[in-house]
Amino acid sequence: MTKTIAINAGSSSLKWKLFEMPEEKVLASGIVERIGLNDSIFTIKYGEGKKYEDVLDINDHELAVEMLLKQLTELNIIESFDEITGVGHRVVAGGEIFDDSALVNDEVIKQIEDLSEFAPLHNPANATGIKAFRKILPDITSVAVFDTSFHQTMPKVNYMYSIPKEYYTKHNARKYGAHGTSHKYVAERAADMLGKPIEDLKIITCHLGNGASVTAVEGGKSIDTSMGFTPLAGVTMGTRSGDIDASLLPFLMEKEGIENINDMVYILNNESGLKGLSGISSDMRDLEDAEATNEDAALALRIFEDRVRKYIGSYAATMNGVDAIVFTAGIGENGVETRENIINGLTFLGAELDPEKNNVRGKERFISKEDSKVKVLLVPTDEEVMIARDVEKLK
Amino acid sequence: MTKTIAINAGSSSLKWKLFEMPEEKVLASGIVERIGLNDSIFTIKYGEGKKYEDVLDINDHELAVEMLLKQLTELNIIESFDEITGVGHRVVAGGEIFDDSALVNDEVIKQIEDLSEFAPLHNPANATGIKAFRKILPDITSVAVFDTSFHQTMPKVNYMYSIPKEYYTKHNARKYGAHGTSHKYVAERAADMLGKPIEDLKIITCHLGNGASVTAVEGGKSIDTSMGFTPLAGVTMGTRSGDIDASLLPFLMEKEGIENINDMVYILNNESGLKGLSGISSDMRDLEDAEATNEDAALALRIFEDRVRKYIGSYAATMNGVDAIVFTAGIGENGVETRENIINGLTFLGAELDPEKNNVRGKERFISKEDSKVKVLLVPTDEEVMIARDVEKLK
Repeated sequence: MTKTIAINAGSSSLKWKLFEMPEEKVLASGIVERIGLNDSIFTIKYGEGKKYEDVLDINDHELAVEMLLKQLTELNIIESFDEITGVGHRVVAGGEIFDDSALVNDEVIKQIEDLSEFAPLHNPANATGIKAFRKILPDITSVAVFDTSFHQTMPKVNYMYSIPKEYYTKHNARKYGAHGTSHKYVAERAADMLGKPIEDLKIITCHLGNGASVTAVEGGKSIDTSMGFTPLAGVTMGTRSGDIDASLLPFLMEKEGIENINDMVYILNNESGLKGLSGISSDMRDLEDAEATNEDAALALRIFEDRVRKYIGSYAATMNGVDAIVFTAGIGENGVETRENIINGLTFLGAELDPEKNNVRGKERFISKEDSKVKVLLVPTDEEVMIARDVEKLK
Repeated sequence: MTKTIAINAGSSSLKWKLFEMPEEKVLASGIVERIGLNDSIFTIKYGEGKKYEDVLDINDHELAVEMLLKQLTELNIIESFDEITGVGHRVVAGGEIFDDSALVNDEVIKQIEDLSEFAPLHNPANATGIKAFRKILPDITSVAVFDTSFHQTMPKVNYMYSIPKEYYTKHNARKYGAHGTSHKYVAERAADMLGKPIEDLKIITCHLGNGASVTAVEGGKSIDTSMGFTPLAGVTMGTRSGDIDASLLPFLMEKEGIENINDMVYILNNESGLKGLSGISSDMRDLEDAEATNEDAALALRIFEDRVRKYIGSYAATMNGVDAIVFTAGIGENGVETRENIINGLTFLGAELDPEKNNVRGKERFISKEDSKVKVLLVPTDEEVMIARDVEKLK
């Protein structure tokens, strides 16, 4: 019986979940926020609904890890550090180098840092988290789990952009996708629930959160996904535009007096999507509250649904059919109306939602009618358990 | 019995077709090339395969129109200018102003010129053609026919980008589409061939030429189309990238040392697509000749087919079904293998190609199997006759 901790490190945060493996029992979870700023917030949830919270100054990720381990023993969640035999780190960009999770060593850390140009906000933070744990627990198994690696099975016809080919050969400009750990988890759960080998299934997984992506999973492998070179592309998201005509960039830059293209892309990443369309909020719930009286909020919701529906249609075309459509992540798990509006426009595929079964939040279940040709499922995602499993696998 | 001339004016060219209306009989057609350069080339096709050709210096569009009219009488195609009672001009960008063809007057010309920011290469040239005819034949009916107007029926949910809403309200940044005259023509022909009122049909029209776009036509109206704010977006084209992740622009500009975003967008418009992917040619025929021995050429072809197939899937989702898929324009009319590869991946929709019927170029016919649930049609496009019809309609 060993304990494994799954880590998602941001530039000023450290989110974690502690598992007993191989039972996959969650012992505790928490987050350290505002690392390196003042008044860092330190939270641990454990036991049966117990919660520990503290506000103190934590200067860096190393100190956060030290505090965390100390607190785990003080709260008697573990007796000593030695019980933790593995740590798994979420890493956003794995490029073409990592088509699976990897045991961490110096070279792997360097590669993760070198891949920062594909995820400038995330990879350096992920590497910081890895290094902090290595310093404090140098002897445990340390594994990097990449958001992109599940999508490395995409065929070239799907990952190549129709741009000069040397942009790929020289600069690795291609589609990488994201949310891979989540798409993989829910596709595998869906196959289990369907009682069929995943090798025989065509599944479309919709990870719909503040960031959102749709993936075509054929035979258990990602063969296409809606996010692109970066997470900007694909469906409408909380603050990201998703797909747009690239010609809009010079046009809007001139009209708005934006001189630097990075400022324009910042707007497309942070001021667009549901937030930009509605002018109110990037949060689906706020828009649902407003939609009866606010046209822009209603329009933003309909556009979100339409873009997801279109990707489902295009991925059905890519696989020449679909057996199951799976919803997950914040909106996918809780957006009862969103799921209904998306699927009600797909009866031509043979997908029939059961409104009663669909009237649920965050529960793993079928939400299509008994005799629906295409099954529709709700599967709460669990990226952390996937990370913990990969640590076990590589031990 | 009247004669109407359909005009497609480029910056240094004037393409035309002379009809006897309302019979829609083609009396002659031709092109003046290299206007304003030296050695302009003047070509007229008429009668039963007769051809007149001359090389001379034509300084401007007015002179081109004068020469053309003079030559039409000298070749006895018309007896005098008076027989021509109408002229219709193709105009690329009609913005949100023109949802139908319009009788030309001073204001319309100004509006067309003002819309040049949406089509910098085309609208000024289109306006030049209009003004040349107005000067020389001031009393005939003159009509502007817009590439975008058929798409003005798109609902807001489809034409809005998920960007800050003031970019639409302030700058009209939205989807306009293109090839509207062609999509409309082939959708109407398809409805005739199907023997059903177009109001009852869901049709996906694929205008596949060097420029390519796919349109969802529901009840005779365009409800979505793959080209966007400009013709850059959508499927892979001869030299255009189609949809890409906008984040690629700053990334590639930095990597390649491209300082001006307009230079980057120029590459996406002119050096990308089939040409960029293959490194050989933007012409489908060259790639088909090369594909057996050249991996890049084969990949470019498969990507083109995939992107068209994906748009067909997404538009089936947008309409919640599809009754007919129509192919037109250079590749659509002549690409036997391309059509086969696209449709063979769509059997899940109930589309079954008949390989024998499909083995044809440029002929109007059904190419799906007799009992195919979704009908597949080949319809050679005829934008000129649509222009001539709109002239008649507005007389």
